[in-house]
Amino acid sequence: MNWLDEVRFDTDGLVTVVAQDAGTQRLLMVAWANREALAETAASGHAVYWSRSRARLWRKGEESGHRQRIAEIRLDCDGDVVLYAVEQAGGIACHTGRESCFYRRLEGGAWQVVDPVLKDPELIYRK
Amino acid sequence: MNWLDEVRFDTDGLVTVVAQDAGTQRLLMVAWANREALAETAASGHAVYWSRSRARLWRKGEESGHRQRIAEIRLDCDGDVVLYAVEQAGGIACHTGRESCFYRRLEGGAWQVVDPVLKDPELIYRK
Repeated sequence: MNWLDEVRFDTDGLVTVVAQDAGTQRLLMVAWANREALAETAASGHAVYWSRSRARLWRKGEESGHRQRIAEIRLDCDGDVVLYAVEQAGGIACHTGRESCFYRRLEGGAWQVVDPVLKDPELIYRK
Repeated sequence: MNWLDEVRFDTDGLVTVVAQDAGTQRLLMVAWANREALAETAASGHAVYWSRSRARLWRKGEESGHRQRIAEIRLDCDGDVVLYAVEQAGGIACHTGRESCFYRRLEGGAWQVVDPVLKDPELIYRK
């Protein structure tokens, strides 16, 4: 039995992946993986996703340098969500230059930005 | 501008919801919500989801008693994932009687159950 056979991919061959900081436990991001992305993640020890917008494997940090070293991989009870516990290079997971993609909090009936930009995205993504 | 208008629901009117323990930061579960579930969650202060299998609102804990009191609600950068930070009644989020649904860890090429059952599901769900 291959561990990948126990993952319940959807009809597009994808599974939801939650990435969490292995140290602080901060929720960093939620993305997708296909079978190949999970296999490469486990083999390489760095987080790989499937980019739906670009329709290709997304080796997190390939442009930004903000790679995610895998501390552990978990699977939920019904097998359709995978958890990557990671060490986040640069302390920045979000393309906006913030630690986490979850930087907006509901306050008084509106989304408020409550986390700082740690690095200007133009500096992160310039060639 | 209603805060719900900034949530990017999918073509089925659903958005992914990640529930995390507000104290320990443990990732508890991943489920779905529609607009009504989010509205009721914010208004009631307790986690409400949309059950795809039962095709109805799922007031977490309605059968098990394991309700989730909302500490905060966050939205991710592209607006298609919501975070519920919660206080988990009974310390059990998973229908298997475990703290978290993510109780299997990839070890040596296989999923290993690494978290204990805290309460027998038959005792949780009996009428």
